Amino acid sequence: MAGEAGKARTVLLATEKAFAAAAVTKIEDVLKAANYTLKKLENYKSKEDLLAAVTDADAMIIRSDIVDQAVLDKAAKMKIVVRAGAGYDNIDLKACEGKGITAMNTPGQNANAVAELVFGMMIVSARNNFDGTSGFELVNREIAFYGFGAVARAVHKLAQGFGMKSFAYDPYIPADKIKEMGAEPVATVAGLFEHQYVSLHVPLTDETKASINKELLGKMPKGGTLINTARLEVVHEADMIEVLKTRPDFCYLCDVAPKELVPSLHGLLS
Amino acid sequence: MAGEAGKARTVLLATEKAFAAAAVTKIEDVLKAANYTLKKLENYKSKEDLLAAVTDADAMIIRSDIVDQAVLDKAAKMKIVVRAGAGYDNIDLKACEGKGITAMNTPGQNANAVAELVFGMMIVSARNNFDGTSGFELVNREIAFYGFGAVARAVHKLAQGFGMKSFAYDPYIPADKIKEMGAEPVATVAGLFEHQYVSLHVPLTDETKASINKELLGKMPKGGTLINTARLEVVHEADMIEVLKTRPDFCYLCDVAPKELVPSLHGLLS
Repeated sequence: MAGEAGKARTVLLATEKAFAAAAVTKIEDVLKAANYTLKKLENYKSKEDLLAAVTDADAMIIRSDIVDQAVLDKAAKMKIVVRAGAGYDNIDLKACEGKGITAMNTPGQNANAVAELVFGMMIVSARNNFDGTSGFELVNREIAFYGFGAVARAVHKLAQGFGMKSFAYDPYIPADKIKEMGAEPVATVAGLFEHQYVSLHVPLTDETKASINKELLGKMPKGGTLINTARLEVVHEADMIEVLKTRPDFCYLCDVAPKELVPSLHGLLS
Repeated sequence: MAGEAGKARTVLLATEKAFAAAAVTKIEDVLKAANYTLKKLENYKSKEDLLAAVTDADAMIIRSDIVDQAVLDKAAKMKIVVRAGAGYDNIDLKACEGKGITAMNTPGQNANAVAELVFGMMIVSARNNFDGTSGFELVNREIAFYGFGAVARAVHKLAQGFGMKSFAYDPYIPADKIKEMGAEPVATVAGLFEHQYVSLHVPLTDETKASINKELLGKMPKGGTLINTARLEVVHEADMIEVLKTRPDFCYLCDVAPKELVPSLHGLLS
């Protein structure tokens, strides 16, 4: 890949949570081949750092970093924002459009990584966080997917390896297609919560925001476990805290709830 | 199942590390149906407790509990010792034979449980113990099995689900049989250590005792990881400590090294 002849381009890699070193090396190699300049802002701590870094960037690569109007206003040369990950909820798409900036994401690219993480969390939890006490096996247990996109299907594939039974609800995928992929179609969101594990794989939208509430969680059987590798805000926080306080058998596995955002939740998750 | 007519039998369940409650309930049900008396000695702390408990038992069920000459000498009525697990190294078979006591084990019964545990440990380790830093995925990586019995094959089955490549050495299983099961046969023990993950599934014998030494471990590639769910003593302890001290990239995943037995090891494992 080569840059447009004669154009000097600066690509900003802005990652509040840095990529693995190997990934950064690959990005460096690609940009070098294109004669582009890479500017790294990794593990930055304040919005001000980001605002200062975007001023001379023609493009930026981000993870879950927030790119809002304030960021775009400082980015006079910006032409494209690429999110390494699924979803766009951290990018102000309207503001991008207003400035003629293209926004892109990479759905499915991290699907297997998330799927492996889900199983890591499920096994550790089933073994009582490796505290030495007896736990249980995942084989023959049931997992239900809310949303059956790339990540959910990667989790489903691993679940099949573990001898689990999969169920799925996705308003955008026909039931026979879900069946074809080896999962049992479920007619409603509520129907998912009859199974021991429910794994969330929906984007954050007005419809999904705070949609996982105590009514749904209350339907879960003994040992019910909600897995959230999607978006923190999909779960109704106050309801979750109430459920965690009142149901000792219930389990919430989550990689999207940083301590600084929800200290009250972390107090309960231990 | 019913007991012999007119015979009152006492079955001792002696587990230093108790079974899951559900398993104990199942044992209770079976013994009740047979009109046998169940005597439970769970989570016992001293050998004396075991010596006192065996005196009136006709049979005993154990896990990794040590049944040696001293225990058998107190067990005047004992007819059978059943180990829930693979291997016999915690039972003095010669002493059993001398007293006409039958020893049995349950190879393969906990194979899937161990296999799931192996993947729990591998994923958590690959994600740097969930410390928030970037880790790596298991997909496409290589795992080599020393011994390809029931547990190894269960780990192999999960490895296939994760898209890993399996290798195996087992002196008692022909190479073509190993190939048939989807793993690449390896000609020597040393050959196993060319792969990133080596998982031990050998019994503790004179031949295997302390056989995993620094010569073998030194062959492992960068990020080499030894998984030991077999027996603590198969690994040469002093060599392992040396390797852990000198190779920060090396990883030892182990569920068979209690802190009280090897404090020096735990200091390094963190």
